[in-house]
Amino acid sequence: MTLLVQKFGGTSVGSIERIQAVASRVAESRRAGNQVVVVVSAMSGVTNKLVEMANAIQARPDNREMDVLLSTGEQTTIALLSMALLALGCPARSYTGSQVRILTDDAHSNARILDIDQDKVRQDLDSGKVVVIAGFQGVTADGDISTLGRGGSDTTAVAMAAALHADECQIFTDVDGVYTTDPRVVENARRLDSVTFEEMLEMSSLGAKVLQIRSVEFASKYNVPLRVLSSFEDGPGTFIGSEDETMMEMPLISGIAFTRDEAKLSILGVPDIPGMAHRVFGPISEAGIEVDVILQNIGNDQTNDITFTVQRKDTAKASEILEVLAKEIKAEAVQVDDKVAKVSLVGVGMRSHAGIASRMFEALAKESINIQLITTSEIKISIVIEEKYLELAVRALHDAFELGNADANAKQ
Amino acid sequence: MTLLVQKFGGTSVGSIERIQAVASRVAESRRAGNQVVVVVSAMSGVTNKLVEMANAIQARPDNREMDVLLSTGEQTTIALLSMALLALGCPARSYTGSQVRILTDDAHSNARILDIDQDKVRQDLDSGKVVVIAGFQGVTADGDISTLGRGGSDTTAVAMAAALHADECQIFTDVDGVYTTDPRVVENARRLDSVTFEEMLEMSSLGAKVLQIRSVEFASKYNVPLRVLSSFEDGPGTFIGSEDETMMEMPLISGIAFTRDEAKLSILGVPDIPGMAHRVFGPISEAGIEVDVILQNIGNDQTNDITFTVQRKDTAKASEILEVLAKEIKAEAVQVDDKVAKVSLVGVGMRSHAGIASRMFEALAKESINIQLITTSEIKISIVIEEKYLELAVRALHDAFELGNADANAKQ
Repeated sequence: MTLLVQKFGGTSVGSIERIQAVASRVAESRRAGNQVVVVVSAMSGVTNKLVEMANAIQARPDNREMDVLLSTGEQTTIALLSMALLALGCPARSYTGSQVRILTDDAHSNARILDIDQDKVRQDLDSGKVVVIAGFQGVTADGDISTLGRGGSDTTAVAMAAALHADECQIFTDVDGVYTTDPRVVENARRLDSVTFEEMLEMSSLGAKVLQIRSVEFASKYNVPLRVLSSFEDGPGTFIGSEDETMMEMPLISGIAFTRDEAKLSILGVPDIPGMAHRVFGPISEAGIEVDVILQNIGNDQTNDITFTVQRKDTAKASEILEVLAKEIKAEAVQVDDKVAKVSLVGVGMRSHAGIASRMFEALAKESINIQLITTSEIKISIVIEEKYLELAVRALHDAFELGNADANAKQ
Repeated sequence: MTLLVQKFGGTSVGSIERIQAVASRVAESRRAGNQVVVVVSAMSGVTNKLVEMANAIQARPDNREMDVLLSTGEQTTIALLSMALLALGCPARSYTGSQVRILTDDAHSNARILDIDQDKVRQDLDSGKVVVIAGFQGVTADGDISTLGRGGSDTTAVAMAAALHADECQIFTDVDGVYTTDPRVVENARRLDSVTFEEMLEMSSLGAKVLQIRSVEFASKYNVPLRVLSSFEDGPGTFIGSEDETMMEMPLISGIAFTRDEAKLSILGVPDIPGMAHRVFGPISEAGIEVDVILQNIGNDQTNDITFTVQRKDTAKASEILEVLAKEIKAEAVQVDDKVAKVSLVGVGMRSHAGIASRMFEALAKESINIQLITTSEIKISIVIEEKYLELAVRALHDAFELGNADANAKQ
């Protein structure tokens, strides 16, 4: 018998009607002969309302109590969904994180799953029940309620699937799969039938917000086959698995990810002596600023230029730190540009194919787009460009690699 | 050190501001040197909203899932109240019914408390924390969430007080104590400083809805000193304890309870053979109808007249049953009157004092109020009268026993 874990997010269970629609879909999966574990989020809007109440009481709400509060959101959904399943004549049983026993560490609001007790769930599945589990939450060894942080319901689903050795973990969402790029930017963006975990990680960390990066990492680590599907329409969605599983139709390039939320900072004329990179990035990291791309070029006269990008909201803070530092280490100047964007070409096919980068640069040159920074990894080439060229660049690359055409892009 | 259990109902925690006001009051009790355990209900309106959602999904929502759903209401309150206490610099910690481990049987939606684990609570109290506990809920031996039914938060408070041998269980509510009768009916109704458990039981079962009868029974059984106080104003409230504890100022009559929610039914000319009462009340009870007063008079010719009262909403159902029965057992007739009310005089002083009944009947006679039924217990005399005389009767009795005047009514 096939065992499926199906996860439905806040929008998918955002009203009584939608909960009933989810119940129909789940009941159908069961009728088709599958064992089904459902993981659900809080109804959309609920979590924000709870956060608002907490903030009205405590400027920085207590972490432990915040988890007690937020976990009520998913608890409400599991009860309502179980009722909706029962109303359809489909046997069902709900469990909170504490009840399953999803054991986590005690990092409240950002806990990590340590262990999952399968006994009750197995027993219910074997007796023909659908098991409905509250996502996003667990319990500490002391019996305190914990939550997994943003996107935690995806993580719960993947962790349940791993623990139960499920055949597939299906993430239902408001899009019908993973696309070659954002369809709002490129009209003929195409839904991918499958991508590898690695590609998905590069795509989601780069701004294709279909799946939480943490849950993809988790799925990759435990080799849990994932599928992204629409909650609202039927369709095969996008399969996400290991390279073996997705090999059949491996394309050269899977997709183009991009983000406009970037700022570029440079510190020029840094003395070329050991320890300078640490002096620059130590205080940046201490200030809680995440650095994305880092480049170091040789400058003039025994000095280096160090350039990096940060999220745009951190521009002012990072720039202040650099100005102070520049004086201390007698660097020449600090340059800041918060009108940049990053575009990345992602595909495991790159590993075995040369010439991808030059084809990429050629396509951009044709459109007279100046490339400011370039970084590469095994399966990704990222460039930083002026923000105003972003859409043009994405479209040019989508065309150059014929991503709109499944056949043309098939691996040679 | 004095250990107090303080219970706040839905109205008292009905908004962020009210939760903050409750926190101030609790923090003050702690600052005054008390150990404090707080039991709270769901914010007013929340439970009804959850019930509505459930009913929109299942005509008769599943009991187990309903408890999962409803328990989120109190869970929300404990988190918010704990935050409010922490915001005031008062150390606090919340527990759901499952977390304390309030063990119940598995009668979902109407569970009974079997045992309470005190370890965590004691430990927190000893370390100076206020412990905030979700009322109304517990956990079954299987780990399922259970709820105690209506008024369950009072029961939780009393049970916690009993388990912890608390010095007092304080029930904060929207009235400032127990009154000699309803102040909306009698202007000079007076707050009682103290009443006995037995009096309180007679008063609350008769319609003075300050405390849930179940929690008073529980308090009486385990001899937990209770106090009813206003959440909104300061004041001593009303103390409710055993006869020993309240003896000091024992009055002859404590109060006058009444209910207009009554209907009177008679079945006349019932053959005087054994088993007839059972034939009448068997089907009534099977139909889930609660019977209050029962009287049986000797009629004519070897027949009896049986009269009883039920809640007014059950009139039609009860009357149908009687009509069918009357034919079967060849009774003469069925009479129904749903325009009656019940008035009860309550006081432990009655035990040792004769003449209360005649003084009562005299007062009513003076106002030309006809008494339809009379029943008495050790500490109570109840009469059923035409509903339209209800207010007049209550005022007449309140005056006759000088209940508006504390001194006049003191035990002689």
